[in-house]
Amino acid sequence: MDVIAFTPSFEEYGWNFGGTAPIRKVRPGSVLKLWTDDAFAGRLRRTEDRASALIDIRYTNPQTGPFYVDGAEPGDTLALHFVSIEPARDWGVSTTLPLFGGLTGTDRTATLQEPLPELTWVYEIDAAARTATFTAHDSDLRLPLPLDPMLGTVGVAPARGEVRSTAVPDTFGGNMDTPEMRTGATCYLGVNVEGALFSVGDGHARQGEGESCGVAVEAAMNVTVIVELIKGGAPAWPRIEDDTHIMTVGSGRPLDDAWRAGQVDMVGWLRELLGLSTMDAYQLLTQISQSPIANMVDPNFTAVVKVAKNLLPPVQAYRGMHRHLASMAAGL
Amino acid sequence: MDVIAFTPSFEEYGWNFGGTAPIRKVRPGSVLKLWTDDAFAGRLRRTEDRASALIDIRYTNPQTGPFYVDGAEPGDTLALHFVSIEPARDWGVSTTLPLFGGLTGTDRTATLQEPLPELTWVYEIDAAARTATFTAHDSDLRLPLPLDPMLGTVGVAPARGEVRSTAVPDTFGGNMDTPEMRTGATCYLGVNVEGALFSVGDGHARQGEGESCGVAVEAAMNVTVIVELIKGGAPAWPRIEDDTHIMTVGSGRPLDDAWRAGQVDMVGWLRELLGLSTMDAYQLLTQISQSPIANMVDPNFTAVVKVAKNLLPPVQAYRGMHRHLASMAAGL
Amino acid sequence: MDVIAFTPSFEEYGWNFGGTAPIRKVRPGSVLKLWTDDAFAGRLRRTEDRASALIDIRYTNPQTGPFYVDGAEPGDTLALHFVSIEPARDWGVSTTLPLFGGLTGTDRTATLQEPLPELTWVYEIDAAARTATFTAHDSDLRLPLPLDPMLGTVGVAPARGEVRSTAVPDTFGGNMDTPEMRTGATCYLGVNVEGALFSVGDGHARQGEGESCGVAVEAAMNVTVIVELIKGGAPAWPRIEDDTHIMTVGSGRPLDDAWRAGQVDMVGWLRELLGLSTMDAYQLLTQISQSPIANMVDPNFTAVVKVAKNLLPPVQAYRGMHRHLASMAAGL
Amino acid sequence: MDVIAFTPSFEEYGWNFGGTAPIRKVRPGSVLKLWTDDAFAGRLRRTEDRASALIDIRYTNPQTGPFYVDGAEPGDTLALHFVSIEPARDWGVSTTLPLFGGLTGTDRTATLQEPLPELTWVYEIDAAARTATFTAHDSDLRLPLPLDPMLGTVGVAPARGEVRSTAVPDTFGGNMDTPEMRTGATCYLGVNVEGALFSVGDGHARQGEGESCGVAVEAAMNVTVIVELIKGGAPAWPRIEDDTHIMTVGSGRPLDDAWRAGQVDMVGWLRELLGLSTMDAYQLLTQISQSPIANMVDPNFTAVVKVAKNLLPPVQAYRGMHRHLASMAAGL
Repeated sequence: MDVIAFTPSFEEYGWNFGGTAPIRKVRPGSVLKLWTDDAFAGRLRRTEDRASALIDIRYTNPQTGPFYVDGAEPGDTLALHFVSIEPARDWGVSTTLPLFGGLTGTDRTATLQEPLPELTWVYEIDAAARTATFTAHDSDLRLPLPLDPMLGTVGVAPARGEVRSTAVPDTFGGNMDTPEMRTGATCYLGVNVEGALFSVGDGHARQGEGESCGVAVEAAMNVTVIVELIKGGAPAWPRIEDDTHIMTVGSGRPLDDAWRAGQVDMVGWLRELLGLSTMDAYQLLTQISQSPIANMVDPNFTAVVKVAKNLLPPVQAYRGMHRHLASMAAGL
Repeated sequence: MDVIAFTPSFEEYGWNFGGTAPIRKVRPGSVLKLWTDDAFAGRLRRTEDRASALIDIRYTNPQTGPFYVDGAEPGDTLALHFVSIEPARDWGVSTTLPLFGGLTGTDRTATLQEPLPELTWVYEIDAAARTATFTAHDSDLRLPLPLDPMLGTVGVAPARGEVRSTAVPDTFGGNMDTPEMRTGATCYLGVNVEGALFSVGDGHARQGEGESCGVAVEAAMNVTVIVELIKGGAPAWPRIEDDTHIMTVGSGRPLDDAWRAGQVDMVGWLRELLGLSTMDAYQLLTQISQSPIANMVDPNFTAVVKVAKNLLPPVQAYRGMHRHLASMAAGL
Repeated sequence: MDVIAFTPSFEEYGWNFGGTAPIRKVRPGSVLKLWTDDAFAGRLRRTEDRASALIDIRYTNPQTGPFYVDGAEPGDTLALHFVSIEPARDWGVSTTLPLFGGLTGTDRTATLQEPLPELTWVYEIDAAARTATFTAHDSDLRLPLPLDPMLGTVGVAPARGEVRSTAVPDTFGGNMDTPEMRTGATCYLGVNVEGALFSVGDGHARQGEGESCGVAVEAAMNVTVIVELIKGGAPAWPRIEDDTHIMTVGSGRPLDDAWRAGQVDMVGWLRELLGLSTMDAYQLLTQISQSPIANMVDPNFTAVVKVAKNLLPPVQAYRGMHRHLASMAAGL
Repeated sequence: MDVIAFTPSFEEYGWNFGGTAPIRKVRPGSVLKLWTDDAFAGRLRRTEDRASALIDIRYTNPQTGPFYVDGAEPGDTLALHFVSIEPARDWGVSTTLPLFGGLTGTDRTATLQEPLPELTWVYEIDAAARTATFTAHDSDLRLPLPLDPMLGTVGVAPARGEVRSTAVPDTFGGNMDTPEMRTGATCYLGVNVEGALFSVGDGHARQGEGESCGVAVEAAMNVTVIVELIKGGAPAWPRIEDDTHIMTVGSGRPLDDAWRAGQVDMVGWLRELLGLSTMDAYQLLTQISQSPIANMVDPNFTAVVKVAKNLLPPVQAYRGMHRHLASMAAGL
């Protein structure tokens, strides 16, 4: 079993999916111990800091990677199991960015109104207490919130030779910004190019579903991930499996389309796992689907479709890959 | 304390919000013991039954009510606490309706494709085992699913003299189709007309979030509900409170707008409950929001915004109305 | 031939579709000479006037009508031919309303931003010169624009017993806000209730396609309209025919759905008029469709699908009804 | 004045924006005489041909280019004046592609319904008669339609290092599919990278607004274009100017956002051209905007906002660049 530790220098950050040369080659079965910078590459640290002044907004969500996976070919399925995602600093940061976010006009949903004020919130992260503390700007409220660390951005190189910004979620994964991408989850991604060229980044100490203002509790992370490869079987959209749920992740605009994409993919998955007809799978999903919104703020929005395993007969997605990886993780 | 039992005859069913004369007057503080028919008025009972043949599709979701609440005036807030919602028959039913549902073109999202097949599934409801059993059409799968009874449709008369079909969710509540409307929940609705004119119906033995095919496990229900009135304070959108969460419920198209409506209402609610500025409330909500989709199938779509009470300092929404009603309920 | 002149008093205005008793009975073939007030019932007259101060915003688009058409039954087609639509005053007015319009957040597309300023523009209407003159608030520009008078709101009572505000466009017509509803046009509407119960209002001296800020050059109008009835043949969506084009009018949200509805209806109409298969009609429409947006500001958005008659073989929509009515109009 | 003739070989086709090395360097003021292949690279020629069998659907809209424009830097404005766009073959072709187009579910608006049939229509192009003739599959209708040749795809390299498929329209132009891109039009595009790297392709002998089935009358074209460069002034979205109109072109999903983007850009343009305040420009645009839909079928939808010059005081967009180029064109 290869164990590869890698902390990128700033010059090694990746800023897109598909347009960056691989930084390492890894073999299926490898364990990667990575460090990921936060969405602002650590430049936003104090409540006085303003992203619009400090940051070239074209460059957010720096990626650790991409990694070239030996043997990965278009049509294969990459499995990434997150053994642990832990904040690497004792603070996280959030901010409002002008004309960015879910409750404001944006460059896409263009209006003539003035932007909301640009403000920055710094969260103290207490790894022992497992909290990230919100501090109000305009009143005395201080509120410790439970840590729930996750990665906003997990993706491979897109199809058709496209190169996409690390702000974008789509079929290749990318900036899905779902809290389901936490410790213990296995993410399945369809491979579009030789080597898959996956990367990870954009850690959040926690986020709400929808990521309303567009910026979670952004945090650098220490990430341990096991890389596996399944020949063939590439899903149309990213999938996630953890001990309790199987999930599909659709992205698009409007949110309706993100949800539809995830639903249709889940109908297909249930059909396959349970030997159901399409109409029976559609009916069953109607009664058991959980549908949390992931983000309503990125260039594409993202919706997750979850099915609780305990509602189903025993199923073995990808021949038990998640259980296999979880047991590998337990042995590390 | 008034206790009023009411089971409507078919002729007494309400088929809209705002266009039906009140069937009873009730005083705030009353306990209603109601019976509600299922969405198809009980006409769909066997897997061979077809809604398109048996039902005038313009008439679904028959309502029990409307009830005239003494003293309710426009701008007031109606509080409905669901003491219990229990299946009234030992079966429930679901179906696919041509060009209706989330994973098909519809009369609104019009396409030229052929409709999906029309099929009906009958679920056995076992009140003791607390299950509703799915039976596949095209294979041998039988799957008992946990009962989670709820009401799809809870609403008052709309504003502006409008009359809306019982298929529609909007600011007046209506066909929100969210599983959060279950036993133990208190629903707050803004009053638009004298007497509020609320009604309930469209029980589901359970449903997934999104109600993918457009039809849940439709079931007649015995419903016990306590009616209370709060003078003033009418929320822009329906709100729900239970022992663990406060929630807002936005409806609209696309789903983006349903989510935005619920979010903006929740920002205002957090601002008020916690004494926060708008920007602080927006930031806090960004990190703590839960955003389950309710339905993607009605003339308007519905999204719920939930905030867990245990993440907040102690708050007293509507001066503790939910706790008051829950304790009344416990004493019944 | 009945000729009926009718100018409503304020108390006789209609404020919705479906909820108002008929003001007159008319026979098919009648000529109505009507007066319609402007969208604000004439209360907004000076640049200093503010709609938010002067007007109960729930009551806009007062209707002249509804008229009960003898013999009209559900499933029939009402034909309204606009012989003339002429401004009845020498001024028109436009305004920005807080959180209303196409380039601002609204109650439906809710954001946290401040509303745009509320401003009022008064247009001089010169009936002889055929102009409505725009006068800038913040500079010296005065710009005479060609008159192009039209009616924003033409509709019948909705189906399913619904009552809808005069702000809403939908299958029953209503507030479609398309400049195609001008002198010389014939509007076809499906009848939902006995007598059809049609009404007209919301005249615009002119408007751009989309009605960007939500308020056109609002003007009282003298309207001459011929009423005809076609037994059966009710279209799913409003249709318009003039000397040069046939048109369908879809409404919904997002605008995508409005467009789809009008397109699917036009595919059906071409199929019927030209004896084409669905796929041939779809293909032909692909190459000849004109698709102007009508409004992006009402509770539903509206898109028009136009086909130029001179691209088609000679066709007789509704057995030549438009030509018949236009020739009647010429003889008045 | 440089006159450069260029007909690419198949190996020289470009298949994306931003990911292809420049094929030629050109100086501002150059005249290019180009040949562009059709969307299917000429492989679809007979009604029996099926795109799904003959074509790698990932590779449509082959581009002629990209061209590196000397001196072009990020923030500059590229002006492309189309001197002539003329069909290069005596046939054009259209087709329905499975799960592609405006009146079907797609990979983005995913449903469970069966796809529409895949059919191909071949149009005879008669350059002398100026017609492209539609021939029905399922009946005898043959209908000569007026030629109105245009380019579906005109774009530069995107910002942020992105590479986008030639199926996509966005801020960089690309697959806008608007019939306004015809002979006599000047297209203004913001430059994102050194040399601009523009290309053109996807000629249509004609198309309806919306391009309903997703495929126009696809045709190879002989294109003469004059290339000019304006230092600075990069517009946020593509703009088009012809002798009668100024236009902005927004793309996005849903169509609402495409329209909003074009409208906000036009408000800014009117403000600048006429010295108006934002609110006055918004008001004026409300009354004069034309809003034809361009396409409802690409990964982003596209809406055009047009303002007729004859409604405005004399304006000189880009210091009269269009008039300058049109007069150059007249002298060729």
